[in-house]
Amino acid sequence: MEKPSLPSGTRDFGVETMQKRKFILSTMERVFQLHGFDAIETPALENLKTLQGKYGDEGDQLLFKVLNSGEYLSKIDPQLLANVDYKVLTPKIVDRGLRYDLTVPLARFVVMNRDKIQFPFKRYQMQPVWRADRPQKGRYREFWQCDIDVVGANSIISEAELVEMYLEVFKSLDLKVTVKVNHRGILDAFLPVLGSKENWSSFMVAIDKADKIGQDGVAAELENRGLSHSVPHWNWLWNVAQNANNSELFEALASYEPIQNDALMLGMNELRQLFSFLGDDGGVQLDLTLARGLSYYTGCVFEVVTSDERVPEDFKIGSIGGGGRYDNLTGMFGLKDVSGVGVSFGLDRIYDTLEAAGIFPSFQNTTTALICAMEDEYLPTATALSRRLRELGIRNEVYPSAAKLKKQLEYANKLNFSYAYIIGRDEFMMRGYQCRNLKSGEQKFRSIENVVHPDKFDFNE
Amino acid sequence: MEKPSLPSGTRDFGVETMQKRKFILSTMERVFQLHGFDAIETPALENLKTLQGKYGDEGDQLLFKVLNSGEYLSKIDPQLLANVDYKVLTPKIVDRGLRYDLTVPLARFVVMNRDKIQFPFKRYQMQPVWRADRPQKGRYREFWQCDIDVVGANSIISEAELVEMYLEVFKSLDLKVTVKVNHRGILDAFLPVLGSKENWSSFMVAIDKADKIGQDGVAAELENRGLSHSVPHWNWLWNVAQNANNSELFEALASYEPIQNDALMLGMNELRQLFSFLGDDGGVQLDLTLARGLSYYTGCVFEVVTSDERVPEDFKIGSIGGGGRYDNLTGMFGLKDVSGVGVSFGLDRIYDTLEAAGIFPSFQNTTTALICAMEDEYLPTATALSRRLRELGIRNEVYPSAAKLKKQLEYANKLNFSYAYIIGRDEFMMRGYQCRNLKSGEQKFRSIENVVHPDKFDFNE
Repeated sequence: MEKPSLPSGTRDFGVETMQKRKFILSTMERVFQLHGFDAIETPALENLKTLQGKYGDEGDQLLFKVLNSGEYLSKIDPQLLANVDYKVLTPKIVDRGLRYDLTVPLARFVVMNRDKIQFPFKRYQMQPVWRADRPQKGRYREFWQCDIDVVGANSIISEAELVEMYLEVFKSLDLKVTVKVNHRGILDAFLPVLGSKENWSSFMVAIDKADKIGQDGVAAELENRGLSHSVPHWNWLWNVAQNANNSELFEALASYEPIQNDALMLGMNELRQLFSFLGDDGGVQLDLTLARGLSYYTGCVFEVVTSDERVPEDFKIGSIGGGGRYDNLTGMFGLKDVSGVGVSFGLDRIYDTLEAAGIFPSFQNTTTALICAMEDEYLPTATALSRRLRELGIRNEVYPSAAKLKKQLEYANKLNFSYAYIIGRDEFMMRGYQCRNLKSGEQKFRSIENVVHPDKFDFNE
Repeated sequence: MEKPSLPSGTRDFGVETMQKRKFILSTMERVFQLHGFDAIETPALENLKTLQGKYGDEGDQLLFKVLNSGEYLSKIDPQLLANVDYKVLTPKIVDRGLRYDLTVPLARFVVMNRDKIQFPFKRYQMQPVWRADRPQKGRYREFWQCDIDVVGANSIISEAELVEMYLEVFKSLDLKVTVKVNHRGILDAFLPVLGSKENWSSFMVAIDKADKIGQDGVAAELENRGLSHSVPHWNWLWNVAQNANNSELFEALASYEPIQNDALMLGMNELRQLFSFLGDDGGVQLDLTLARGLSYYTGCVFEVVTSDERVPEDFKIGSIGGGGRYDNLTGMFGLKDVSGVGVSFGLDRIYDTLEAAGIFPSFQNTTTALICAMEDEYLPTATALSRRLRELGIRNEVYPSAAKLKKQLEYANKLNFSYAYIIGRDEFMMRGYQCRNLKSGEQKFRSIENVVHPDKFDFNE
């Protein structure tokens, strides 16, 4: 028989991993709810036409497509099959795909429920998404996104709230991070000096690599792309970005003559507002080279990276969150003028980072007591005792057979239980149990009529 | 532009629905954890060979299959394509499928992690599953199962624990249910009188319909199936099952001469043990016609149906949970002699039942306060106030623009907020806010330095 295995890029989450994942999720959820956000969920299966064309050509390639059920070939022209062209065949045999992110489903949800929703709509959504990408460190084919979005409001106060929520979540998780901020307007301001939309896009692709290839690397790439005339602008941008704090950066931008235009004004104005709303800008950094998902976002853009010294040097995992303002969220489904802003937390990368840095609190098994019956006939008494302890809110279990005490206590010790309640012959006859503190070894007889919380148990009484 | 839609058999869960679903899930989880069960999760995507052949021919047809990515036709013999046979093509273009239940993934998980697991392994798992079934009332293509299993122990105490957990969960949900119990051994006891395994299977299929077609209907079906000689046994069984309580049933079984054999002894013995462990057998009912998943289970079987008067008569949704003992859980993946027992809660049917019966508690919006700024320039003050309230643990939000007060309060009222904190010109100048109780209309000025929990706010002070 073949050994069972998991598909590449997917994972099982065992007991300890789940405790840690739940710790992250509940930390986020607490912050989301304190800020007045509510949960929604959407199905994993979406119609393919809902997904396709929303993530660019590359995204379309990465969609997991679900084969139609039944005799899916029965209505297909055999001639078409004979052509052996998967691009032609796929739309004939696939109507559905797996959710690729949580933003397109949100847009669909808002359009389909627009009459029921109170705007501004503040929702959070924590669910898995699927991408047929090549698996590598920090990149899975099935992974979780945790998104918060404010839909139907265009004040920068929403951007500020999302940035604060980033800071609050990571503070609660005890992970030091930097929230990088930029504004599409500041990038758009370079459009006139670059001469064309195409040049501008090339410029953005090049400077987006700055953190990997450095100033000279970007300059060389700009030369290669035939953008020699942009190199001085790049050098200016790099030097400013390296040496200035936020307010110096604003000053520099405002006085760099080639980019004085409406786009710059808008971007700077909105970023200034953003900083005015933030209580404490520690952890928030203007990054003029941040050029995230440009075809999509229209205002502020965000990205979160770790800046925690406990994360090992060689642990490179990329961003652990990101997002931005999209002025036309629902336009893809025909509903105009609904502005949204949202950010995503990458649960799996956050998990991997906390794990690599050794930051997780320790999750002890929280089961307090194991009830041990020494004979099968004492098991009903054991279950009655178990029930009584549960009524007191004490997590406990009955060892499911009258195995030798040594074996039962081994199980209790391995799972780090605090107490054993032992029912042997004498105890059974006397309608009682021995309560043993598994840490200290102390033990005392008690009547079954007299069950108290073991933490209040007086072994010397 | 096409109107967006959802795939048939899938659903969005909006804010209110999510509150109710989370109420059910957290109720279950609390009970699961009190009993010492821990969470695991497995991926939605499984290798097709893990799933196929585990659910019978019908189940294989209902598996959602995920098309291989990339140029999935490139290595396929064009001759094979020309045959237009989907059964031959599918295994060539599909390596993965969507999880169909949580039991096969559990078996795979146990086999792959057997060296790390402490047995008995008590796990719970609450995740969606997918079946390409025809959608109808109470049947979805994407729905949630919540499973609890005890793996690696064969004492009936585990069965008793699972039955108690059913009772505790539904008691907490305030839904009256009946847990039907039967034992494979009692059904096997009829094998000798029926003459062959085939006759026995036919007998089981017929009696399984008793709750739909009644005593005479089953008798007629047995005649049709050429099992006239079994009709007296059926009539005996029906009469006993209708009129007897549990202990009378045991007596009747023990004295019905044709079925006195080892299988009956085993079944009765285990059922008697089960009842001896149950604290209060109210809500648990022996049902000799319960013949659930016979090819799979080897001992006790369970099914939960509602018996609550508040559920409308015409609301027929079938069982809301079920399970049983399988002596060879991991045998399908080559690991022998691992016994398991488990039950499943059907989250979606439980939801639909509670909704139809009007049993859900009311979930008010729990956001306490809306912070209202009357001018854009007061928004930074509003966010500072919001931050201070959050530090006090008060869920609140800033209305994200300086809209008219009427519009802001309308939003607060529709979402059922309790308080508004209003910052107008005077308040801004005096570094304070008006705290308004939205239920009573009372309002009072307070300094921004003096933020207390609004429930402790003295409006008459």
